[in-house]
Amino acid sequence: MSTPRHLWEPLHVRLLRLLRDEGPLSRAELADRLDVARPRLLSELDRLLGSGQLAEAGPAESRGGRRSTLVELNPAMRFAAVDLGATSIDIEVVNGRLEPLAAYSEPADIRSGPKPILQRVNELLAKARVEGVFDRLDGVGVGVPGPVSFRDGVPVSPPIMPGWDRYPVRELMTREHGCPSVVDNDVNIMAVGERQGGVAHSVDNFLYVKIGTGIGCGIFLNGEVYRGSDGCAGDIGHIQVDAHGPVCSCGNIGCLEAVFSGAALAREATAAARSGASPALAERLAQNGEVTATDVATGAVEGDVTCIQLIRDGGRRVGIVLAGLVSFVNPSLIVIGGGLAQLGHIMLAEIRSVVYRRSLPLATGNLPLVLSELGPRAGVAGAAVLASEIAFEHAS
Amino acid sequence: MSTPRHLWEPLHVRLLRLLRDEGPLSRAELADRLDVARPRLLSELDRLLGSGQLAEAGPAESRGGRRSTLVELNPAMRFAAVDLGATSIDIEVVNGRLEPLAAYSEPADIRSGPKPILQRVNELLAKARVEGVFDRLDGVGVGVPGPVSFRDGVPVSPPIMPGWDRYPVRELMTREHGCPSVVDNDVNIMAVGERQGGVAHSVDNFLYVKIGTGIGCGIFLNGEVYRGSDGCAGDIGHIQVDAHGPVCSCGNIGCLEAVFSGAALAREATAAARSGASPALAERLAQNGEVTATDVATGAVEGDVTCIQLIRDGGRRVGIVLAGLVSFVNPSLIVIGGGLAQLGHIMLAEIRSVVYRRSLPLATGNLPLVLSELGPRAGVAGAAVLASEIAFEHAS
Repeated sequence: MSTPRHLWEPLHVRLLRLLRDEGPLSRAELADRLDVARPRLLSELDRLLGSGQLAEAGPAESRGGRRSTLVELNPAMRFAAVDLGATSIDIEVVNGRLEPLAAYSEPADIRSGPKPILQRVNELLAKARVEGVFDRLDGVGVGVPGPVSFRDGVPVSPPIMPGWDRYPVRELMTREHGCPSVVDNDVNIMAVGERQGGVAHSVDNFLYVKIGTGIGCGIFLNGEVYRGSDGCAGDIGHIQVDAHGPVCSCGNIGCLEAVFSGAALAREATAAARSGASPALAERLAQNGEVTATDVATGAVEGDVTCIQLIRDGGRRVGIVLAGLVSFVNPSLIVIGGGLAQLGHIMLAEIRSVVYRRSLPLATGNLPLVLSELGPRAGVAGAAVLASEIAFEHAS
Repeated sequence: MSTPRHLWEPLHVRLLRLLRDEGPLSRAELADRLDVARPRLLSELDRLLGSGQLAEAGPAESRGGRRSTLVELNPAMRFAAVDLGATSIDIEVVNGRLEPLAAYSEPADIRSGPKPILQRVNELLAKARVEGVFDRLDGVGVGVPGPVSFRDGVPVSPPIMPGWDRYPVRELMTREHGCPSVVDNDVNIMAVGERQGGVAHSVDNFLYVKIGTGIGCGIFLNGEVYRGSDGCAGDIGHIQVDAHGPVCSCGNIGCLEAVFSGAALAREATAAARSGASPALAERLAQNGEVTATDVATGAVEGDVTCIQLIRDGGRRVGIVLAGLVSFVNPSLIVIGGGLAQLGHIMLAEIRSVVYRRSLPLATGNLPLVLSELGPRAGVAGAAVLASEIAFEHAS
């Protein structure tokens, strides 16, 4: 019984979003696509041309009558997309159509606290400005690896981000760059990115499952990110999968993250290397002094039986959790992303086999379960989308 | 970033809903409460008075100026609320304010198929008409114990309802009673009922967990029932809770329903009676030839240790599933209902203890976990609400 989103969203937001996603359009095409009376459209266009959000873009192809001119987003429009990971900073500056004009990536420890991290973000953006990538920013989107109060624009009790609790990230970015800003959880921005330019394009109900250092889930319901009552929806890493499993960092027993994540996999791979169960992993350990999830992926590709088994066991555990969520939320798509997505089709096959066997047949009849298309770019791609949305909402 | 519901819902729906929930109001009060210009309100009122949805209800108390008259829903407005269970038919006929005027309950086997069941429903409604409860119906709401395509108004592959798959329940009720009808899953209507007149009053994000013959979950997100891509969201009875547990009727191992539900509890109670582990249950078995979930509840109240332990074990299993769902969906309330809610506070204490220990602290900081207030009436109460909503939407 819910009304389609476009019927109650302001015209200027719908208009700017359409030009972002489709590029230059004529006034006639805009009137058709937005299903709005021409006089109202023209007055809105005049307003947005006057305030500098829009620009004329040459003559449109003739549709018979009087020639019309194309309208586009101001070519100088710029958004900054910032993806803060546990151990990395990734930034892109994009134009109004969300095309990247510059990208910066470097290692950084989120635990060093908000001041040095945000200072480094601002230094990188200052560099981009000096290099002529932008003159001024129209919106900033920031993703952080922890729970966020979306409304307040602050991290809330983030377990791996000491010093960040309720730190006014959004307010500081807004002040620094003189434009609207938005802060969200890293998994949510990845889900947003995958929906804008990846495999979840235009899908209204889907789950984006990030399997990396930790495990989390971005939730799209009815075409919107669902964040929950306290902004911490999607925290699936601490769902119990083994009542007799290892103790998790959260203090509970047998959480998904404790039995399968980057850290858990490295631990089990090291044990397999030491015990001699896996010749491939033993060789890596001798060479590098450590083994990582990437070594397990490589070993599996080379046919090492223990590596394949480790991935299968992990996939099965993820599958059990996802089977429950499929029964609960009945999504129309599941996307697997994050660092461990590199484990690829062996893991995917195992997840699929458990989900398709264990969930309600009605819920899995048309349920694709696929790997992320955007891979490591999903985060910045989503942060750029959120930056544009907040800028469009303020363009009134 | 979602717009409050009232901003995009049609005025007549908001107006009728307000009079349903608050009773007679003056024109001045309506204009205040609906935040709408007086001329527009007056023309809408005239239209609804003319079409018979509304009636004048005498003079309002003076607010200073010219005396105003009260407006109310037409006192002859009637909705039929039908709750079809696995083994029962419950019907209420209510007035516009959802106050029950007549109620009918009788045993019925849903497996006897749609024709005899719906014929019996119509006979009971004909009886109500003969008894003068209504002259004509304005809306019919029907709940069924299985998955429903809400859009199509038909059950879809319902496991315990042979013969009902895609049977046109809504269409037949609409034709029979000459008014708009709506069909939904039994757990969804219970959640709707509890939100209208029970413990979940006005809560936007909550879960209603029904523990009875089967186990299911009604999901309210952002103030609306969330039904999922195929209408089968909330099917939590088949989430795995014990990898080494019993085989479930669905063919999988260790589903929640297989280890704790009315049927599972009766089975375990019978075993405890036979083995002599529980004197209280052994006595019931000798007296009645069987033991039921009610006997376990009675035994627990009388202090029988085995009965208490059975309830605790079940509560723990439910708690494990709910802990995962709390981490996933971050609701602001969980309501426990259904037949086994009679197990009461022993079960509730165990569920709470697992959820509060296992879920993310941020998600449980303000999370009440309570028993249903409406009890067995939740279903008909919710069916009545849905009947009124569909009637109001059609009152244009």
